[in-house]
Amino acid sequence: MKVSDVGERALVELARRTFKIGPKVKVGIGDDAAAIDIDGRYLIATTDMLVASTHFPQGTTAEQMGHKAVIVNLSDLAAMGAEPLALIFSVGLPRELDVGFVRRMIRGMDLTARRYGAYVVGGDLDESDDITIAGAAFGLASKGQLLTRSGAKPRDVIAVTGQLGAASAGLKILLGRLPAKGYEKLIKAQLEPIARVREGILLVKNGARAAIDITDGLAANLWQISRMSKAKFIIDREKVPIHPLVQKFADRHGFDVEDFAFFGGEDFELLFTVRRRSWKKVQLALKRIGTTAAAIGYVTRGRGVYIRKHGVLEKLPDRGYEHFK
Amino acid sequence: MKVSDVGERALVELARRTFKIGPKVKVGIGDDAAAIDIDGRYLIATTDMLVASTHFPQGTTAEQMGHKAVIVNLSDLAAMGAEPLALIFSVGLPRELDVGFVRRMIRGMDLTARRYGAYVVGGDLDESDDITIAGAAFGLASKGQLLTRSGAKPRDVIAVTGQLGAASAGLKILLGRLPAKGYEKLIKAQLEPIARVREGILLVKNGARAAIDITDGLAANLWQISRMSKAKFIIDREKVPIHPLVQKFADRHGFDVEDFAFFGGEDFELLFTVRRRSWKKVQLALKRIGTTAAAIGYVTRGRGVYIRKHGVLEKLPDRGYEHFK
Repeated sequence: MKVSDVGERALVELARRTFKIGPKVKVGIGDDAAAIDIDGRYLIATTDMLVASTHFPQGTTAEQMGHKAVIVNLSDLAAMGAEPLALIFSVGLPRELDVGFVRRMIRGMDLTARRYGAYVVGGDLDESDDITIAGAAFGLASKGQLLTRSGAKPRDVIAVTGQLGAASAGLKILLGRLPAKGYEKLIKAQLEPIARVREGILLVKNGARAAIDITDGLAANLWQISRMSKAKFIIDREKVPIHPLVQKFADRHGFDVEDFAFFGGEDFELLFTVRRRSWKKVQLALKRIGTTAAAIGYVTRGRGVYIRKHGVLEKLPDRGYEHFK
Repeated sequence: MKVSDVGERALVELARRTFKIGPKVKVGIGDDAAAIDIDGRYLIATTDMLVASTHFPQGTTAEQMGHKAVIVNLSDLAAMGAEPLALIFSVGLPRELDVGFVRRMIRGMDLTARRYGAYVVGGDLDESDDITIAGAAFGLASKGQLLTRSGAKPRDVIAVTGQLGAASAGLKILLGRLPAKGYEKLIKAQLEPIARVREGILLVKNGARAAIDITDGLAANLWQISRMSKAKFIIDREKVPIHPLVQKFADRHGFDVEDFAFFGGEDFELLFTVRRRSWKKVQLALKRIGTTAAAIGYVTRGRGVYIRKHGVLEKLPDRGYEHFK
């Protein structure tokens, strides 16, 4: 059986079953990041690898590659409610690559890391055919203040930060060489995403219970958090905040807007659940730092993810961006 | 200018100059691992990437790949005197790879990590043409108990653990398809290296001041530690402990034994310096756990690395294994 036959989820499950963990490991494989108990605090650690030919559309600049390599890792810390400390990178470079490109890439890493209060403190350089950037990010969280994928409870409000669909619509424009005029924000969302680090910290401080960053698409990430929390998620289609330019772009070209907002991925927004009584407080805390958040549904007893559309409740397909399809 | 024109050392120097670090970063780019102050202790973090076509000779098993990916990272922690906590891995896999291979590889990772008291707690999976394993390891060290590359002081004893040259002689056998009979230990040193984790912790507790793990070869690693400590290193050729099988192998095939023991790399032994008055104590502490250590020279004022051979002092060539030559 080949890697491509079993898919990413089965491989992650294989890893989760294989790797034994000790008592200090509070969260192991299967969440956005790992959490390890170090005398009263949690060390939060995550890794994400980007390979140029798969992850960066043609025309991505060196700075943007460096930027995104930092963001994908910080976003995982954000989804745990952790405060970033530092990043390290193993970078594989083709021998023929221009040194100026490398200089701009690491400058992009440095600027983005520092914008989030983190530093790049180490790395490894190797030769590889394709530009490969494997990052690891470290952060800290207080004990009892951790957002996991398994923390959702019945009656919790399900919510998301920001608006969805922009990054994957931007990718569609780039890959399909569609006219970009008027849609620059979508392209920027794809090439220069942001990480919801401050939002993650506010979420955990204001009583949110579960979170995941939206990388595989809202639908796939809803399924992940619902499976890990062993709870049923009911989503109201009308309440899902879709980026207005995505709606316009989809209408213009006859695309299904849900392909971007539900199944597109790489929004790096936070999908989270929060006690009903804490929801308004969370929303207000986010508003104070200029971030919108929308309640899109609620958690209940049972299993699966369902969506109410035009008054009808149906199962939401569990599909999204996955590396090994 | 291309990446291959400037070489690895220049790229590391570029990164060191580019990345700004904050006050909590005690050790940044340029050492074996980074050290970050977290309330009275140091978080030690390192990353190392292995790419199958460059790092694993033909015939390396899946378990051995997983094993070595853990060792190269733990060895960096050892060189800082840190106690390992956990590892995370970003792994790039070809679509056509057999799932059984992946299973054996991660089993190798798990067994080796746990043998050193560490756990694999997270990861990322991606598609790539060549098997690519980017690991990150983190551990803890007490404040004031840190082995860096810059800590060597005049009058320190220079020493190494174990015996040198086995791993690169083993690589020579594998790459040159030379007869392996009688040299199985050399091949094993290449494919299944060990990390001197307990030794690193004992070194720091017994007053060692500087250390580096021997990955690029004794000569290159001596130059690195001497440059970063701004001191002159004098080595006595007769005292450098060479693996007896390496001597035998070199004699048999007419190779220069120094090509393995000085310029070969991947021994993963610790090269360290220690106050003259602490040397015997360090040697004894290592002996108690069954590890030999040899004093091979001393630190003095000045710059450069010199070696005394047959009564003559000459400059040791600053060359060794480097990824971008």
